[in-house]
Amino acid sequence: MNIISFPERTEWPNLLARPIQSTQQIEAAVAPILAQVRAGGDVALSELAKKFDQIDLSVEQLHVSANELDAAEAQLSDELKAAIRQAYQNIRLFHEKQKQPVEKIETMPGVTCWRKSVGIEKVGLYIPGGTAPLFSTVLMLGIPAQLAGCREIVLCTPSNHPAIYFAARLVGVTNVFRIGGAQAIAAMAYGTESVPQVYKIFGPGNQYVTAAKMLVAKEGIAIDMPAGPSEVAIYADDSAIPAFVAADLLSQAEHGADSQVLLVSTSKKLISSVNLTLTTQLGRLPRQAMAAKALENSKMILVETQADAIDLLNAYAAEHLILSIDNAEAVAEQIINAGSIFLGNYTPESAGDYASGTNHTLPTNGFARAYSGVSLDSFVKKITVQHITPGGLQNVGPVVEAMAEAESLDAHKRAVSLRLASLAEANPA
Amino acid sequence: MNIISFPERTEWPNLLARPIQSTQQIEAAVAPILAQVRAGGDVALSELAKKFDQIDLSVEQLHVSANELDAAEAQLSDELKAAIRQAYQNIRLFHEKQKQPVEKIETMPGVTCWRKSVGIEKVGLYIPGGTAPLFSTVLMLGIPAQLAGCREIVLCTPSNHPAIYFAARLVGVTNVFRIGGAQAIAAMAYGTESVPQVYKIFGPGNQYVTAAKMLVAKEGIAIDMPAGPSEVAIYADDSAIPAFVAADLLSQAEHGADSQVLLVSTSKKLISSVNLTLTTQLGRLPRQAMAAKALENSKMILVETQADAIDLLNAYAAEHLILSIDNAEAVAEQIINAGSIFLGNYTPESAGDYASGTNHTLPTNGFARAYSGVSLDSFVKKITVQHITPGGLQNVGPVVEAMAEAESLDAHKRAVSLRLASLAEANPA
Repeated sequence: MNIISFPERTEWPNLLARPIQSTQQIEAAVAPILAQVRAGGDVALSELAKKFDQIDLSVEQLHVSANELDAAEAQLSDELKAAIRQAYQNIRLFHEKQKQPVEKIETMPGVTCWRKSVGIEKVGLYIPGGTAPLFSTVLMLGIPAQLAGCREIVLCTPSNHPAIYFAARLVGVTNVFRIGGAQAIAAMAYGTESVPQVYKIFGPGNQYVTAAKMLVAKEGIAIDMPAGPSEVAIYADDSAIPAFVAADLLSQAEHGADSQVLLVSTSKKLISSVNLTLTTQLGRLPRQAMAAKALENSKMILVETQADAIDLLNAYAAEHLILSIDNAEAVAEQIINAGSIFLGNYTPESAGDYASGTNHTLPTNGFARAYSGVSLDSFVKKITVQHITPGGLQNVGPVVEAMAEAESLDAHKRAVSLRLASLAEANPA
Repeated sequence: MNIISFPERTEWPNLLARPIQSTQQIEAAVAPILAQVRAGGDVALSELAKKFDQIDLSVEQLHVSANELDAAEAQLSDELKAAIRQAYQNIRLFHEKQKQPVEKIETMPGVTCWRKSVGIEKVGLYIPGGTAPLFSTVLMLGIPAQLAGCREIVLCTPSNHPAIYFAARLVGVTNVFRIGGAQAIAAMAYGTESVPQVYKIFGPGNQYVTAAKMLVAKEGIAIDMPAGPSEVAIYADDSAIPAFVAADLLSQAEHGADSQVLLVSTSKKLISSVNLTLTTQLGRLPRQAMAAKALENSKMILVETQADAIDLLNAYAAEHLILSIDNAEAVAEQIINAGSIFLGNYTPESAGDYASGTNHTLPTNGFARAYSGVSLDSFVKKITVQHITPGGLQNVGPVVEAMAEAESLDAHKRAVSLRLASLAEANPA
């Protein structure tokens, strides 16, 4: 990894910049796929599976049958099933606490306002195929959808891994479809004969999937958040254990060659030790080629003070931020930009990735400056409701009349004046 | 208004469809404006003010001085200032209750997770010029920004109406700029010499402003929500007062020729009465031309049963939904798609538009199926934090190891195994 010592603050923007992703070419490739699915429905999905994935899939085979889903359980080890069930329980507990009770608020006498949370009626989850079958993401998206009470939870995945099917059953997915890539996003955005149209689409994917999500978002389909390569920043001091820090850096780097990994420290000694053990640990990894490539673009930054470190981390806005430092909880209070924060030596990112209870769908690419990770909130809408009594309208009405008049919105004013006049007539003073 | 009686459910989608907005042409016009501001900064803003608004505005005049803001107060009537202050208080009270306390949750012994809310550091508010000076929107966006603790609140507006400046002062806007149109969105998205770059942009505007927001959203700047013409749906029965219903329909219609207005009822009598009084009331409005145009595209729909009405309203997903019916609160429980709901005969939409306390920035165009209106949540990020003790890692670690192995993410597993091994070594069983 590149080691940078005491960079000037003016150099920070360049140092912390993410690789620029040019999306135009990919969007140009994806737009016709969306159009084809929109026009051709199931038949188009079948044709695209043949064209891009060399798979013969009849229109009838798009939908994964209940029998196939049920059969998955028998194909998993008891150990893995128990692990998935425990993760399910932890994630469910953490997200359940995010439910907000309805609280009626009387803002003026007779003027009562509240918010009610309603699950988005139809949501779509995308789970990519590839070498790593991301059944953990089925839990991370499916559990809050289930808690929110979404009535239709559609899952599209090109993978037929039994753990994905098992997790889909656990979280109460209503329909699973054997569809991958940009065409899966199109199917859920527009609906086909088999696939229900949904109102919001969640989940990771390659650049084509990401581009498809951005294109349908422009058409009004909600998406979880914009996506970029996964990343971790670690702030470590001499209380950190170098082997643990190196292992955490590598667990991010193995995600892909474009992963972003950053180590910040005020200790030159810590940086040297981590760098040393990193090389040894890398040699033992099955995905070492990928991880090595990610490390090439990654940086270790030596700063003078803790204040510098905090400012730099807030400027970077990491998806995952590990604080392997003495006063981790106090420093976490000063972090204003991050997706998720991990405190101390025994809180590896992978715990949050799988099973501690927090969500692992988090804002990358600096989006943590404005976006939160996925939570129960992502699957509900909060509808405001208000009720005003005749007396309440007599209290708030004159305020509304004065403001509407000043904004030259006469009919707004009259909707109140008419009612006040009718009340005055009924009960003359 | 068009009256449609007992339409078949198969006709609903056409009946409830919003006018299609073609955005491609507008985006093509807006993209070069964004590029010009990005490259040219303040000078470009000055040039664009000359070009589009025929205003001579030096670079120094872009920023509205503290003196100018202070001077606004003296130009407003005491009545209006009192009204604005009362609205401020109501809106603030309602949004303050949306603050969520931090709750630490132990998902397994030794595994503690929580969420903290942090205000988005830099936000931008856009307030359009035009005939109606939308100082109410300054309150609706500025109050939650203030409550969230956003450190920089930028306001761009081409209007110099004293009520806008007065409201900006009340909500603690940090900087006001005399910039309108797509170029204002560009200035806040990219930053210029004068205008700070922000992370999220809020506020209404014409089609150019809307297109600019969608374009910068694609580049990763967060926006409040996609926008469309404002709309109201009213569900009324024989307990409704026709004159009130007509006034509410008109207060929506006066927003613009593209406003959407919908009346649903099981009572033919009610529909006839509303239609009659509507014509009389329309004749008295200053903005009657605009309102009449909006009414041309609007509909009164007679349905058979309350169940039909509820299904139809959920299918429409109105920005504003007024329930002028006997059992309004019970029916509101069955509404799953709406921006904001108004109950009974004395709760006009205009109360919520200005002063009851709820937010008036709401999802239009059917977006209420997946989006909420603006709230305190819109101005904060929720960062998850977790801390695991050594004993906690011994509890959750094996779950993580099993799942990471099944996902073929070896380094994720090792980050846990290494720690568990070190704990076992320190405390051999």
